Amino acid sequence: MNHRQIILPQSEMPRQWYNILADIKMNPPLGPDGNPIAPKDLAPVFPMNLIEQEVSSERWITIPEPVMDVLSIWRPSPMMRAISFEKALDTPAKIYYKNEGVSPPGSHKPNTAIPQAYYNKEFGIERMTTETGAGQWGSALSFACAQFGLSCRVYMVRISFDQKPYRKAMMETWGGQCVASPSTETKAGRDALARDPNTPGSLGIAISEAIEAAVSDTSGKTRYSLGSVLNHVMLHQTIIGLEAKKQFDMIGDYPDIVIGCAGGGSNFAGLAFPFVSDKIHGRDIAIYPVEPMACPTMTRAPFVYDHGDTAGYTPLMPMHSLGHAFVPPPIHAGGLRYHGMAPTVSQLITEGLCEPKAVTQTEAYEAGVLWARTEGFIPAPETTNALAQVVKEARQAKEEGREKTIVVSWSGHGLLDLGAYDRYFSGELNDIAMSDDDLQKSQAVFADYPKPKPMKSTP
Amino acid sequence: MNHRQIILPQSEMPRQWYNILADIKMNPPLGPDGNPIAPKDLAPVFPMNLIEQEVSSERWITIPEPVMDVLSIWRPSPMMRAISFEKALDTPAKIYYKNEGVSPPGSHKPNTAIPQAYYNKEFGIERMTTETGAGQWGSALSFACAQFGLSCRVYMVRISFDQKPYRKAMMETWGGQCVASPSTETKAGRDALARDPNTPGSLGIAISEAIEAAVSDTSGKTRYSLGSVLNHVMLHQTIIGLEAKKQFDMIGDYPDIVIGCAGGGSNFAGLAFPFVSDKIHGRDIAIYPVEPMACPTMTRAPFVYDHGDTAGYTPLMPMHSLGHAFVPPPIHAGGLRYHGMAPTVSQLITEGLCEPKAVTQTEAYEAGVLWARTEGFIPAPETTNALAQVVKEARQAKEEGREKTIVVSWSGHGLLDLGAYDRYFSGELNDIAMSDDDLQKSQAVFADYPKPKPMKSTP
Repeated sequence: MNHRQIILPQSEMPRQWYNILADIKMNPPLGPDGNPIAPKDLAPVFPMNLIEQEVSSERWITIPEPVMDVLSIWRPSPMMRAISFEKALDTPAKIYYKNEGVSPPGSHKPNTAIPQAYYNKEFGIERMTTETGAGQWGSALSFACAQFGLSCRVYMVRISFDQKPYRKAMMETWGGQCVASPSTETKAGRDALARDPNTPGSLGIAISEAIEAAVSDTSGKTRYSLGSVLNHVMLHQTIIGLEAKKQFDMIGDYPDIVIGCAGGGSNFAGLAFPFVSDKIHGRDIAIYPVEPMACPTMTRAPFVYDHGDTAGYTPLMPMHSLGHAFVPPPIHAGGLRYHGMAPTVSQLITEGLCEPKAVTQTEAYEAGVLWARTEGFIPAPETTNALAQVVKEARQAKEEGREKTIVVSWSGHGLLDLGAYDRYFSGELNDIAMSDDDLQKSQAVFADYPKPKPMKSTP
Repeated sequence: MNHRQIILPQSEMPRQWYNILADIKMNPPLGPDGNPIAPKDLAPVFPMNLIEQEVSSERWITIPEPVMDVLSIWRPSPMMRAISFEKALDTPAKIYYKNEGVSPPGSHKPNTAIPQAYYNKEFGIERMTTETGAGQWGSALSFACAQFGLSCRVYMVRISFDQKPYRKAMMETWGGQCVASPSTETKAGRDALARDPNTPGSLGIAISEAIEAAVSDTSGKTRYSLGSVLNHVMLHQTIIGLEAKKQFDMIGDYPDIVIGCAGGGSNFAGLAFPFVSDKIHGRDIAIYPVEPMACPTMTRAPFVYDHGDTAGYTPLMPMHSLGHAFVPPPIHAGGLRYHGMAPTVSQLITEGLCEPKAVTQTEAYEAGVLWARTEGFIPAPETTNALAQVVKEARQAKEEGREKTIVVSWSGHGLLDLGAYDRYFSGELNDIAMSDDDLQKSQAVFADYPKPKPMKSTP
């Protein structure tokens, strides 16, 4: 019998998150006046305890006990050896995956939803608002709010809302409320509908709606929550990589290549950042965030200052961006349709510490179906993008006749995305890549904004 | 931090299944002539290696290495302490659940699908047919067939097929084919459609179709597979209870009450049989299979000889039965709508070794939603029936002010059944109980059949 699972005992769960801001230098977020914002400027949007985390450069931040307690429902997540997938590819590469599909909502998202709900509760907040693309984040925050007795309102990108009716039921089962975005509830939503009544929506619009709904509650008891992009979200996700490192220690191995899909960047960051830290400190390791060619934020968009949302409610953030007005084509990896990329991940890319890759939709689903038929678990559409890159690396290892250790963040299962598999089998999906013309046009929105400065973290 | 998970190391996985036929006496299955059938009579339907298992009374049967290898993708399954659920019920009872939702298809079903596919492959079979109610079994067999390179055809009860489009996509992702039953592909299907063109279908009809499709393949390379009811299916599922006993050993506890939902009986049997063995050998323990009041096979139907399918293709089996022509009302726990009950479970009931319970649909979903909002994982509709009984026991423990240890088989997650939760929230579900009149009418079909003899296993 093969030992497929590397199980970290629950007593060995990491007790602290790793903060990459201890290791890299960043351009600051800018306010409307073009100057760096102060923590208090964010106070209407986030609770102060999370803002402090957002700006902290402490290397290690202790995970509160009540957060550990809820995480222990499904963590540590198993690290698994993908033996059958390796065999199907006839590769000398050893492929490990960190299975984040084991959480109640089925993805990595609750790793940050739980601490965010906890810190909001501690701060006296009663209601949270957020947006969701594929539905993974909205589900995770609904689950987390149920754990801490908060109410939760989720603005879901319309195309996903329509394609995935089960997501709404899932959020409601946890007591959350789910609204299609753009909605008529907010000015940002009404403006978006005025521009295009048939818009499929976008994460940028949904973020604007959720922020507006939070800050316009005059009771002061509502705050907004973002499921990716921000520093504190990346921080919370590092438990994935910290566990993985312990699991590699258990088997006396260490990866040559780390791979994760990246929409806003949090799943990738969660696995990769603890390994990036090793790389910054001299270790030889390849680290690949993967995105769809239809939304090539990392591989083709410039590193600029841009807003995180469509209406421009957020500060300007230094990041790779396709422009905050970008509405991506309706490919089905809903979680990878964001116009921007986490500033931390973007900074790592500018320094060459991560090398982004892009794959086609066909490559992604081919890898996903091969995965399902070998390893059994059906991956989320987002995850299939990372698996497509794993396939490429495994094939290259075969060509080179070289053993390599690959680890991939298996960000979630696709059991609520089976409609997308159905469309794939029916031949309804295609390999849309963004045109050069569209790419250039999308950049008009930030043409006049300040430009981030080059920063260098490594010697 | 609470230690919610009791993790059995993979090296401690049970290497043998427990066969309850070593501990109880059973009435034999009967052929069309009213005489006990011989193993060879089943040869057109099942491969001989599985038939041998079906009739074996060896206490321990070794799990083949290739089966262990695939099971190790998700086994041992975690046994979890439902701390938050306990707290919400303010009960002194300790509630443990064996989480079978962690398998790729999300239920306990692959515990038998994997060995069945393996034994068929070993016997030289190339194609398998089966039926599915809720879709859990058809998904599991599709997954299993992908693991062993077999093709798979699934007849899915029409009402579930219509209510759960994702199930079909799930089976197809694993390479299976899924057909709504009754279909026009088989005589049994055409007859059922002739009787009622708008029939919601039933497991009995779907079983007839799948058997007919297998035995009518003249190449001899196709066999039928049943996901519950039969002795060898119960056998394969005992890995659940064998793991649970080891997990109780790890924490120095032992259950006072064992609870599982029962449609055909296999999930209940999987957890319960190893504990039933202890009970037969003198241990004091309460063991409750739970069913919906809408399909009261165990709690209201007699113990008789009846066919396992609607068309009468199967031998007569000694079991509690609502009559093989019974088409249950369209309650949403699709896996609990079978007219019969596993002969082994039925025999245990006749001897008082198990005490069946019935719950209403409202009780079930109330328990399921409370579970989701406390423990996080969203249970399958079938599982909620068991949870409703757990709630009753936990409340009784509170009334009595008595600490009790309860273990429940958490048979699967409900992520492909969220439509049912949606209908529950919309108030579309009701508490249908079978009327006395319907109960009596349903029994006409077996009125002339032989009657099973009383059997006594315990001294």
